[in-house]
Amino acid sequence: MNVGIIGLGLMGGSLAKAVKRYGIAKKVYGFTNSEKNKKDILDLNLVDELVDLETLKKVSDVIILAIPVDAIISMFPNFLDIDENTTIIDMGSTKEYIVKNIPEKIRKNFIAAHPMTGTEKSGPKAAIDDLYEGKTVVFCDLEDNANIHVNKAFRIFQEIGMRIVVMDSSQHDIHACYISHLPHIISFSLANTVMSHEDPKAIIALAAGGFKDMSRIAKSSPRMWSDIFKQNRKNLLAAIETFENQLNEAKKMIEDENYEVLEDWMKKANTLHEIL
Amino acid sequence: MNVGIIGLGLMGGSLAKAVKRYGIAKKVYGFTNSEKNKKDILDLNLVDELVDLETLKKVSDVIILAIPVDAIISMFPNFLDIDENTTIIDMGSTKEYIVKNIPEKIRKNFIAAHPMTGTEKSGPKAAIDDLYEGKTVVFCDLEDNANIHVNKAFRIFQEIGMRIVVMDSSQHDIHACYISHLPHIISFSLANTVMSHEDPKAIIALAAGGFKDMSRIAKSSPRMWSDIFKQNRKNLLAAIETFENQLNEAKKMIEDENYEVLEDWMKKANTLHEIL
Repeated sequence: MNVGIIGLGLMGGSLAKAVKRYGIAKKVYGFTNSEKNKKDILDLNLVDELVDLETLKKVSDVIILAIPVDAIISMFPNFLDIDENTTIIDMGSTKEYIVKNIPEKIRKNFIAAHPMTGTEKSGPKAAIDDLYEGKTVVFCDLEDNANIHVNKAFRIFQEIGMRIVVMDSSQHDIHACYISHLPHIISFSLANTVMSHEDPKAIIALAAGGFKDMSRIAKSSPRMWSDIFKQNRKNLLAAIETFENQLNEAKKMIEDENYEVLEDWMKKANTLHEIL
Repeated sequence: MNVGIIGLGLMGGSLAKAVKRYGIAKKVYGFTNSEKNKKDILDLNLVDELVDLETLKKVSDVIILAIPVDAIISMFPNFLDIDENTTIIDMGSTKEYIVKNIPEKIRKNFIAAHPMTGTEKSGPKAAIDDLYEGKTVVFCDLEDNANIHVNKAFRIFQEIGMRIVVMDSSQHDIHACYISHLPHIISFSLANTVMSHEDPKAIIALAAGGFKDMSRIAKSSPRMWSDIFKQNRKNLLAAIETFENQLNEAKKMIEDENYEVLEDWMKKANTLHEIL
């Protein structure tokens, strides 16, 4: 089959590499409206051909949207004339708002997916060979899709080495919030805590593994994450509150010098790793 | 020289491996009062000999304290009769409270150090070959030490591959708080946020790199960290507050749907990585 990928940054670029490597795509077509990225995409040989959107729509059996979640919504009108056999898959980090807004006309073709993988980097140069290998992809609300499209999507993601999980888009957004969106807000907050100190350089000079791990995702793209936080706003606000309550509990125990209770609280946190 | 190590978990066990590997120690003696660990220490061949405390004091040119920070304080009375040529080095994560409590009689011998390295694991089996390699060790308040002891300490830590930084213990505690103690409280809080959800398993099933990194140090020893939080209580409470303010700022921007300002806030967080 021919695969068309819209957006060739970390996610789209890595997918292009994967579908080529596993011989899933006869040809990989790409579309980007970032002039800045075009040269990198060609230099890195990520796709067989960069084409305009109308061409991509015509030549692709599957179209993958690997662009920020707000851009996915803006793209919808472009697909209203798509062939009924063409599968469209979005890979956005939020699902409920996207699914709600898929135009009725393409609802059967449009598969809502979220590959649970990534790095803090972005752009075509961030694309890596094995981003999807051994990771999990969540598909949402498949009951509204035609089987031909579900099967094509399953085939692609399974053949590049992913484990498939299906759930409701509303359930997905809560899960993704805890596992990804909340950790991002926390990491950004930690980075800004240090950056707001009078001498961040002196502090960072001592940084070891723990801090590096905790601040890594604070390097992520503000453009992309702003849209995600917007689309998952309600869940995120609730999750921040739950986290704030936990942190406050710890603070109170330290204030009150309740160290035995604090140890129990940490022991509870340790149990996460029994199921992680 | 002969090196005596008190406590042979992650830090002490890894140090034993390093001083042997680099041929710094003629013999490595160990002392632990954990019956449970004795077998592991011998099975892993971490030291040449496990001895009682009085023997260790007599045969060692350098004694390293690799035990929780409160245990370091409790150990002081045992060293009052130490030979003036014997160097004692503590490797605790807090420094101000320890330095303040060093008995006058051994102040010249007692070097306050903090190697900025570790993993989330603990116990003799957690000991690894290259824990110290290429990392930074902070020495505090060296003006109160005799040169013979400073030089011995420098020699050991440099020869196992560490970079030396010196600073006041009060300054150290602020830095360590931002770089290590605050990130630990945050990671424990994040772990407990997920564990307090009705179905943590379902959430964790989707965990990818970001969440794993953010929650890794929530696996750390509650016993050890309770003491650290106690000894660095004032700085930690202040740092938690600064972090809470940052998180609150983010929450407010999301509540008010001020996404452009939120993007600027994230861009500021991105700048951390220009100096990390």
